[in-house]
Parts: sequence; structure tokens; C-alpha cells
Amino acid sequence: MGNTFGKLFTISTWGESHGGGIGVVIDGCPPGLELSEEDIQFELDRRRPGQSDISTPRKETDKATIVSGVYEGKTLGTPIGITVPNSDHRPEAYTEMKEKFRPSHADYTYQAKYGRRNHEGGGRSSARETIGRVAAGAIASKLLASAGIEIRAYIERVHQIEMDPSGHAKEHFPTLEDVEATSVRCPDLKVAEKMIERIKQARSKGDSVGGVIRCRVRGLPAGLGDPVFDRLEADIGKAMLSLPATKGFEVGSGFSSVEMTGSEHNDLFENRDGEVHTQSNRSGGVQGGISNGEELFFRIAFKPTATILQKQQTVDLAGEETELMGRGRHDPCVVPRAVPIVEAMTSLVLVDHWMRHHAQTKAFSL
Amino acid sequence: MGNTFGKLFTISTWGESHGGGIGVVIDGCPPGLELSEEDIQFELDRRRPGQSDISTPRKETDKATIVSGVYEGKTLGTPIGITVPNSDHRPEAYTEMKEKFRPSHADYTYQAKYGRRNHEGGGRSSARETIGRVAAGAIASKLLASAGIEIRAYIERVHQIEMDPSGHAKEHFPTLEDVEATSVRCPDLKVAEKMIERIKQARSKGDSVGGVIRCRVRGLPAGLGDPVFDRLEADIGKAMLSLPATKGFEVGSGFSSVEMTGSEHNDLFENRDGEVHTQSNRSGGVQGGISNGEELFFRIAFKPTATILQKQQTVDLAGEETELMGRGRHDPCVVPRAVPIVEAMTSLVLVDHWMRHHAQTKAFSL
Amino acid sequence: MGNTFGKLFTISTWGESHGGGIGVVIDGCPPGLELSEEDIQFELDRRRPGQSDISTPRKETDKATIVSGVYEGKTLGTPIGITVPNSDHRPEAYTEMKEKFRPSHADYTYQAKYGRRNHEGGGRSSARETIGRVAAGAIASKLLASAGIEIRAYIERVHQIEMDPSGHAKEHFPTLEDVEATSVRCPDLKVAEKMIERIKQARSKGDSVGGVIRCRVRGLPAGLGDPVFDRLEADIGKAMLSLPATKGFEVGSGFSSVEMTGSEHNDLFENRDGEVHTQSNRSGGVQGGISNGEELFFRIAFKPTATILQKQQTVDLAGEETELMGRGRHDPCVVPRAVPIVEAMTSLVLVDHWMRHHAQTKAFSL
Amino acid sequence: MGNTFGKLFTISTWGESHGGGIGVVIDGCPPGLELSEEDIQFELDRRRPGQSDISTPRKETDKATIVSGVYEGKTLGTPIGITVPNSDHRPEAYTEMKEKFRPSHADYTYQAKYGRRNHEGGGRSSARETIGRVAAGAIASKLLASAGIEIRAYIERVHQIEMDPSGHAKEHFPTLEDVEATSVRCPDLKVAEKMIERIKQARSKGDSVGGVIRCRVRGLPAGLGDPVFDRLEADIGKAMLSLPATKGFEVGSGFSSVEMTGSEHNDLFENRDGEVHTQSNRSGGVQGGISNGEELFFRIAFKPTATILQKQQTVDLAGEETELMGRGRHDPCVVPRAVPIVEAMTSLVLVDHWMRHHAQTKAFSL
Repeated sequence: MGNTFGKLFTISTWGESHGGGIGVVIDGCPPGLELSEEDIQFELDRRRPGQSDISTPRKETDKATIVSGVYEGKTLGTPIGITVPNSDHRPEAYTEMKEKFRPSHADYTYQAKYGRRNHEGGGRSSARETIGRVAAGAIASKLLASAGIEIRAYIERVHQIEMDPSGHAKEHFPTLEDVEATSVRCPDLKVAEKMIERIKQARSKGDSVGGVIRCRVRGLPAGLGDPVFDRLEADIGKAMLSLPATKGFEVGSGFSSVEMTGSEHNDLFENRDGEVHTQSNRSGGVQGGISNGEELFFRIAFKPTATILQKQQTVDLAGEETELMGRGRHDPCVVPRAVPIVEAMTSLVLVDHWMRHHAQTKAFSL
Repeated sequence: MGNTFGKLFTISTWGESHGGGIGVVIDGCPPGLELSEEDIQFELDRRRPGQSDISTPRKETDKATIVSGVYEGKTLGTPIGITVPNSDHRPEAYTEMKEKFRPSHADYTYQAKYGRRNHEGGGRSSARETIGRVAAGAIASKLLASAGIEIRAYIERVHQIEMDPSGHAKEHFPTLEDVEATSVRCPDLKVAEKMIERIKQARSKGDSVGGVIRCRVRGLPAGLGDPVFDRLEADIGKAMLSLPATKGFEVGSGFSSVEMTGSEHNDLFENRDGEVHTQSNRSGGVQGGISNGEELFFRIAFKPTATILQKQQTVDLAGEETELMGRGRHDPCVVPRAVPIVEAMTSLVLVDHWMRHHAQTKAFSL
Repeated sequence: MGNTFGKLFTISTWGESHGGGIGVVIDGCPPGLELSEEDIQFELDRRRPGQSDISTPRKETDKATIVSGVYEGKTLGTPIGITVPNSDHRPEAYTEMKEKFRPSHADYTYQAKYGRRNHEGGGRSSARETIGRVAAGAIASKLLASAGIEIRAYIERVHQIEMDPSGHAKEHFPTLEDVEATSVRCPDLKVAEKMIERIKQARSKGDSVGGVIRCRVRGLPAGLGDPVFDRLEADIGKAMLSLPATKGFEVGSGFSSVEMTGSEHNDLFENRDGEVHTQSNRSGGVQGGISNGEELFFRIAFKPTATILQKQQTVDLAGEETELMGRGRHDPCVVPRAVPIVEAMTSLVLVDHWMRHHAQTKAFSL
Repeated sequence: MGNTFGKLFTISTWGESHGGGIGVVIDGCPPGLELSEEDIQFELDRRRPGQSDISTPRKETDKATIVSGVYEGKTLGTPIGITVPNSDHRPEAYTEMKEKFRPSHADYTYQAKYGRRNHEGGGRSSARETIGRVAAGAIASKLLASAGIEIRAYIERVHQIEMDPSGHAKEHFPTLEDVEATSVRCPDLKVAEKMIERIKQARSKGDSVGGVIRCRVRGLPAGLGDPVFDRLEADIGKAMLSLPATKGFEVGSGFSSVEMTGSEHNDLFENRDGEVHTQSNRSGGVQGGISNGEELFFRIAFKPTATILQKQQTVDLAGEETELMGRGRHDPCVVPRAVPIVEAMTSLVLVDHWMRHHAQTKAFSL
């Protein structure tokens, strides 16, 4: 129930934050793709906590092993199994969570749904679950790269610190290096510095902050996306809203579209050097649920992490009011680490729609 | 591809705006539900254009017929087929659209994807497609009502005119009558009046405006929603983003969550008269993708309609630049008519998750 | 639940034998296929009862209307809706069935499952449901024909009357005319005559007989079918076993394979004029769940129809023993009419796998 | 593509016979089921080769580890990951298979489909893939047992040696001990002895034999199965035909139904001690695709294994004719080892339909 994503290029993730490990099965991958554990490890390392001054001090090694589906360096077309063992097993750190529900976490709802839960480290609701998504996304983005499609996500806002909108202009498509230049993954280095300050400030108070990730895709041809329920933006929106801590999603002009009239908002077509393009791109690269060949872009809001190092009121398993102490480690801003996850989920949706589009419109010669 | 929605309670819609008609097949409906064509017609009438001073003058009758799945006034458990004939067939009104792509419509992308399209009235991308969704939603909301779950959507903003946020407080859950009191479907009558003025103003200029719909659900028990990909908010978000003209989705605090710190944003648990509740509801009724028993609420941004009565630059089928005249009818603000559609899609997601939840946690006695 | 078939080329059928009609929605059809109502009507007429001396005297007109998805004579890529009204409405003919369960029909099980049923003419369990399948299959076989794939089903046995096995040899691939030459659809005219006699004999006693259909496919390339659960023969087997009255399925050597040893059964490879082929074809065209380029063939057992014109013991709704009179019309052997249905289901499975195969192995250039 | 089975209780298998291992992810399992690695190991040991005088001398250890989804001895409701490492890695034993296609294996078709394959031990087409199915089935049968449903499969035929049909009578439902009494898993000990002789005889000639498995289910309530495509027998038939080496499937009277007339074949209803039952059970426990409360039974034909120790003609990768030597180990009759696999697949289908049935007919109080 709900642990498989995709229709043709599907991933099924398994694993809790504490237990034997985390893994993913990728089904439907085309045969013949060159794939190594390094390809996957590169993206996992980007996701891994404990790498920088603004992250949790928790050290996760997150070493991926490909256990099936690859032979002599290339994919076989059969399911690719990837496993990542859990290394940081400290059940004693979670004693308090056994009896008390952490506010704005999934503790209470898992207990309500299943009547039981693995309380250690959040169990299945832990952000560790996204390891499987990132591993699968590494494969999907290799496929997209072979078709000339490039995905880049970055932080545009942390708490009240925000990039200047001009930085998102079409001509400023940041490189991976631009994004990875700082631990906060904002390509505007000056703003990045302020964001890092803001995060450190939150950490010093045992508090947390959220932020906004922008994701941009170029090289996408017109025609991807399936009306009516599986619109490209609907499937991408679902992918993003399936990530922990997300509260909002916008494609193109998003909520700000409401401030415009139709005559202000419409993207007029023009012929640019023999190719049809739109003059503006308030649509964000999709019209009627189908890509139109312009840059695809969207934004995702991440709330401040629920884990804070402050005393909070809560209830226990019996429903009695009590206090949660909030000792231990915490990550004052998880948004930078969500950047590779957003890219991974985007690439999974795009590969799936690429394959669907091909199946319906290219398989028969009509 | 993409014309079926849901896993257990599934709907498959068919039909173009011009052609034999529009329809839907609902599969998985429980047997024994009392169902009449009036139940469905009631919701279709709410969706229908041409009803008010702020809507298009186009008169659609949209008469629903149940062609299968109901016997002696109750559902059989077999697929429910519903058909609605198209009545407004005026192919000559669409001659210009045959050769020219309307800006910010799906004309260009359908042509790019399929190599052909029914240009009359937008074909499959027409808002008429939502008739099938509304018909199916009428059934889903009867099921939810039997379980004490109530859904209410309304307009909270049109262009720059916005309700006061206090109107969305938990204690102000509007009745259907409150919402239907004005043609703009905003329960704050004073604000509604201003919205109507704003829409009339846009119409007089041949322009259009968008808006924001808020949807609220009460009576939802804790436990609905499936981690990790089929989170309740992810499935609802997809449902909303699959509606024409939507550009953004927020659950709970949404993008505004970014302005808060974790200690400000967390919803603390308390014991209220023997029941566990959260003091605040910034989560919007879901935590970790699963309902927590509080009110579920979310917001959807609708861009201003792309159809305007103004001359616009565009290209033709051959890619040559040309002008679109924009004669004919138009609906200056479709958002009020989207209210019953939002409710329909919400009810479809909730029924599906209700059935999934029961299948996994109640089918066996463990 | 269970009314949709296929993964990429999907069909959803709806309708009971008595009620507004029967229909099907086909989703995923490639755009650009020439399609007319005549294409569909041709196959529906083959399925229709009341056409010959050995069939039921019931006259069904079964007139198909394409209500969406086709524009200017070609498919749009959007869902194709097809409806067929019910014409033979005689509720009074079914009074007895309201209270009594017909032996070996679905009356009792539908009542047990859903707590209610449309007893008129079998409701959803009626063979009329296959109308939707045949209509969809007519489209699928046009797609296959464009790829050089040809499907032919025929009767090889009725009760104890059986064709000589030599008639199934590779070189005797019957034409459609061969099959349609007699009302019993056995291409061996002498045997066909005996079968017709046997059926008339059963009819004169108010009894019924079953039979075996063989289905053969030529022109199928190697590579269709997905290990491990969606093997080609598994998906075809499911398709066949989903037809009313089927009790068995065999691919290739079938149950008779058990009589051989491995050295007798193995199909040795050879190089025939530069192409790899197997010398024999006991595999029936599939190895490891994937087509191998040889002729695909399989057999389906249809039990004698449960409807007979004889008095039978049964129970009523209250569970009391009673007698069913068995008045009215009956079809002493439905197997000949199942021939186009078998072809339809086969073509649906093959188109789906064709599209899947292309999506996985041809969409990316690796 | 094709590596996931089930709709609500789904399993996704991964792994090749040679490589990192074999595994399965089970999604949708109800929470609260007591589950240990021993439960799974018990069934894996039944499937494991190398256990008896009639099996391959290959020793596989097949040690299962539960890596997620179980906490403090009970299922969590989250995905259950199970891994089984491969131990018998001898790539040199498969050198010949790298260049030559084994007759009636999947070598040629995998190469044709994917353009590459893991030739060692059959790769993904190896019977080792069924380990994941058996592990998942062990969980499913625990769920069924909690609902009073019992599944028993056994060998009824090996080559020409067959049990007397009276042994399958309703009153002779064999115990697990009856089946496990001999290595050939035929509950009739005298016949079992002859079967073992027959298998040893085949082995001495380097040849192989096939057989027929019968599977019986008791305790199944009326109402499971979904018309029209997901009939219970259609889903079970697909499950069986997805097993390696299967060539035929029959439910109830199967192909022999064709020898009867309708009046001979119909199962008359009677009231037996206040309960509705059928006098005979030629339907095999399903009518109209839905269980009727009688014993469910079906038969599966397994061809003789393709691996034999005899020289055979074949072609190589280049299509040139050559000879395959057939050295090494072989299993002269795999059918006894398929018994637990048949039970596993049956239990997976039944749990899935149990959950579906519950979702549609019990989730709402109507």
C-alpha cells in the first residue's frame, strides 16, 4: 500500500530507519544502461546527513550495494535491487519516543493507523526512507541525460532569506557546481551565506527552519504528460507532496497567477528562428498537463523540521498530557539535503512519462 | 493513459467537448448504496455554466443518465456507467481554432503529443471533461456522508479580493447554503459582492481573473493515507493539480510555513475531554501522510482562464506567427464553477483511502 | 474492481444484460489509427446470437456507437467510448430467476458477494458483457494488423466431436473465410457438419454441450512478454479464464507435455535460411514467458452452458430447496460465438505487451 | 515490468540466480501479524533443492532474513523486505551457456528481448526467483490460517504414473504430513513409490519428466473474486501460468467438462443442514468468477524440465548451429519442489481477493 511509485518505471521502497536496512527495487529499467554503484553512491552522498556545519552531527555511511539487475556493468532489464544497511543503531536514544508522541511527527498517526509502530528514529516515516528514492533517481537521471534532459534543483529560500527572483531567469540555469558550492545549496553565494547564518542561529536555539526548493528542467521535448488525471504537473506535484515535510507545490506562476488577469498571464506563441516558443513562461513548461518544450519549473515548500531541542507539550500512548524533553541530535534545516531527493523524484516522473509517451505514440507506425 | 483515477474506487472518464457526449465509469462502488439520477444531477447543476450573471452565457443542459450498476434504486457493486450527451454543437464557432493555437491552452501540446486533436471547444482538454468527475464525486460523497464525513469547498479569493483569514477558523465551517448563497460561492457575503464586481469588470474588458479555492473536511477519522508515496496530501494534491487551470496547492500552513520556526509551527498535542487533539492545526489534518483526526484543509490556486476576448499573438499549425481574434463567448472567472469539482475530487480520494485503510487494517482479525 | 483490463492499452467495461446498455472505454489507444463504427460492428456481428440454426433464437441487434476518441475518421489518442444499447428488454421472462438460483450460474455467488443482484438475464454476469471486449478487440486487432500480426481462433472440438490434430499443423493456418464457412466455426467442413448435428441433437433435448477453441497467432516477433509475473502465457491465460464458461487453458503441448520426457519435449534450435527457429513447437511460441518468434498457440475448454431447458433442483433466496423450470430460450452451444471473443482478448493482451516491450526496450537509445 | 504481483497485498521480487541474492518486498500486509524468520524458513526449506534422492545434488542454503516491516515479532503494516543471499557461485559451470542457447529455456528469448542476459544459472529466469514468492506466500498463508482457510497442494501425476481419482474426493483432504511423507509429495504412498522409481529412471538416462499438481482450498467463504476480468480462477490461473515450466491449468472439471452435457455438468443446489451447498462440485468452487463456499480446486501441468544431461542440437549467439553438451547437475523432476510454490501463489491470490472483497463490501455500513 503506497510503497510503489510509477507505472512503467516503478520503484518499491522498503525499510525503517532502524532495523536491517533500507532498500529499493526498480522495475522496468531499460536494458543496456551503464550503471555502477558509484553512480548511485554519488547521489546518496549528496543526501547524507552529517556532512556540513549546518547539518546534524549524525554520521550515516549509507553505502549502496546493487544486488541484482546489473551484469557486466550494464542493466539487464530485470529488477534492480539496491540495499543500504543501517549503521547507526542506538535504540536507547529513542526510549522517550516509545511512550510519547512527538508533535507534528508521524508518531501519532502511525499508531492510530496501524495500532503499532517502530518508534526508533521514526521507523518507516524517517527521512532515511528517501535513500531508496535517491538511489532509483540516480538511475532515472542517467536515462534522462542520455536523452538530453537536465534537472537542477536548488534552495531559493530559507526562513525569511530569499534569492532575488532574477536569479531564476531562463539564462541563469545553475550548474551542479553552482549548487554544490555551499552547504545550503543556494547558487547565489551571497544569499547562501545569509541562509547559513540563519540556520546556525536556529540551531543555537535548538530550533529549526524550513525553506523553498525550486526545481528546473531543460531539454524536455513537447508532448510528455497524460491528460486528464496523469497530467505532468499532477504527477510531479504528487511526487513532491510525498516527500516528508512538504506543505505546498507550485508550477509556473503558481499562487501568484491569481494576481494577474488572463491577458497579463497568457504566454503568447512566437516563431523563434523557425521554432515555436512562448514569449513568457508563466505556464512553467506545461499546458493542459503536457510539456510544451519550454523550461519546466516548480517550487516546493518545506516546513521547519518538527524535531527541535526544546521542551514541548504532548500526550503519551494512553492519551495523558506530558512533556517531551527533546534531547539529542537534530538537523536545524533539512531543506538543503532535500535537493537531491527533489531531483530524484522529478527524474522518476519524467522517465515514466517518457516511456508512456513512447508506448502510446511511437510503438505502432500509423 | 491517464484517464483512470483511484485504486479501489476507480473512475474512468471519456468524452470530448464536441462529439457524442461525456461519460464516466465508476468501478468498485460498494453495493447497496441508494442512488438516483437526481443525486448526480444536483452536483452537475452546480458545475454547469450559464447559470448566473458572472458566468458564460453558454447554456449546457448536462443531463445525466445512469446506464448501469444501479438496480431498483440501489448500487449493485458492478460498474456504474453514467453518460451525459453533448448538446451545444456549433462546429463553425471553432473554425479559427482549427488552424491557430490559443495561447496558454492545451491546443499546441495536444497537437505536439498526438499529431492531431479535436479542436472544437478544446476537445478532451475542455472543462466539460470534469462532468464525469463531478458525477462520480456525487456518489463518493454519499458514501462519505454515510460515514459522517463532510466536505465543503468555497472561494476565498478572486484576483486581489480576499476573505479575511478569520473566516476559515474551525468554528466557521460554512454550510452548503452559505456557499451557494451567491454566484461566486464565497461564504462571506460582503466579500462575495466585491468579487462579483471584480469579475464583471474583467468581463467588460474581455479579460479574465483567477482565484483560490479552500476545501475543508470534517469528521475524518485518524488513520487515512498510506505512507510513503500515497500520502493523503500527495493524492489530494495530485487530484487538484489534475484540474484544468490549477497552478498551486497547499495543505495546512502551506508556503507560509516557511515563515515560521519549528517551535512556532509544531502542533502540540493535548487531551481535550478525553480525546487527543492538537492545539493548533498548521499540519492541516495530516501528519506523515496520514490523517490525524483534525480538520483537513487545503488551498488550490486557479490561474485566470486562458480564453479572453482580446486579440492575441500566436502561431498557426505551420508555425507561422499570426493573430487570434478571440471572438465568441467566454467565462471571465471559472473558479466558482470549480467548487463542486474540487469537492468531487476530494471525495474520490477519501473514499479510495477509506477502502484501502479498511482492507489493510480491518479485513483480518489479528 | 476487476472491470478494467490491461496496463497500457486498457479497457473498462460496464453494463448489465438488462438496463441502459453495455459499453467500454478504451484508454491508451495510439493516435492516428483509422477507425470506423463498421470496423467494430463487423466483430460484434460475429459475436451476436440469433444468427444461425444452432444458436439461440434471441435477436440482439447490438449496434455500436463510438461516442468519443475518434475525430475525422482517426483515433485521437484520448479515450474511445463505445456504447451498445440493450434492446431485448423482457423483465417478465426472468421472474423465476428473481427467487431461485440457477445451477452453475453466477446467481448464487453474486447474491453472496453483493447481497443483491440484477437477476434479469444474468445482469453483469451475462455474456452480453463480452460485447465491450469484442468492440475493444476490434481496435486492438487493427493495430496488430498494422504490425503484421494475425490472430485466428476456431472450434476444434464440440462435445466428443473433434478435429484431426493434423489440421492444426503450422502450414494449415486457416483464413477467416475458412472459419466463417459454417455456423460452428470449425475450419474442417466435414467435422463441422458433425458438430452441428451434435449441437442440434443437444438442443432437441433441451440440453447443452461445450467445446474447445484453439487460437493461433502468426507474425509475432520474439521478445513480447514480461518475466516473471506477466509472462505472455500467464496474461493470455488470465484473459481466457476471465471468459464465462471457461474451465481450462493450455499453451503449446499443455497437459500432454506430461506424457513426454525432456528429451522428447525440448524444441531444438536450428538455423533455417539464416533465421533461428525451433524444429518443433511444443513450447507454443513462448519460452520463459516471452515470445520466441514461432507461432503462438493455445487451447481453451468451455464447459457446456449452464442454461438448459430441463427441470433442475435448486434453492431459493431463503435457502429452501425448490425446482427451476427452465422455460424459455437457450443457446445449446455458445462456443462458436466465443471465437471472436477469444480473438479479441488475445489481441488486447498482445497490443498491451507490444506497447510495454517498446516502452522498455525502444524508448531510450542506449 | 511484470515483477510485481497483486493489487492490495503486493509482492515485488528481485534477483538473479547468480549475483548478490534474491529478495522480495511485500506491501500491504496487515499490521499485528506474528511473524518470524522461522515461519518463512519453513516454507523455503520445502522449496529448496538438494534435499532428497530424487532431486538435484545442488545444495542451496537459502537462508531468509527479514530486513524490514517486522518489529518486536509482529508486522508493522509497512513493507516487509526479505533477502536471501546466493551461495552457490560457480560461474565457470556456465561457460557453455554464455555462447549457446539451451533448448526450451528462456536463454534465447531473454537475449531477443533485452539484447543481453545473465547467462549464469539462468539469471532472472532461474527457478531461484520463486524463493521470493515462497517467502511472501508464507506470510499470506498465515493470514489465511487466521481466517480458517487451508491450502494443500500435492503431486497427482508424474509422467505416466497417476493417482486414482478417488483420492481427490472431498473427504480425502490430505494433511501436510501426508504430503511431506515422501520426497515426491504424493499423498498416496504406493503411487508415490512408483513415481520415485520413474524419476530415478529418468535421472539415470540424463532425462527429465514432468507432472501434474493438484491444489485444494477449504474453508473459503462464498464471495471472493471480482467479475469480470479478475475472476478468482482467472487470477489463480495467471498465478500458476507465471510459474516456470507450466503449460496448462484447469479449474474444477477442466477440459473434461467438454465430455459432458449441461444436464450432466450442472452442480445442483441443495440445503444441507440449513446451509446451501452444491451436490457435486464440477465448478471447482467458483461460479461466475466468485467463490461459492465449496472446496476450490485446480490442476496445473508442468512440462518435463528442459535441462537434461544429453547432447542436443542448438544455435549460438551468432545463430550458427552447434551442439550443447549438457554436462553438470540436473534435477530430473522439479514438480515436487513446485508444491510449496503453488501453495504460495494460491495464498497470495486469496489474501488479495479477501482484502478486495472486504474493501468493497464491508468498509461502509450501507
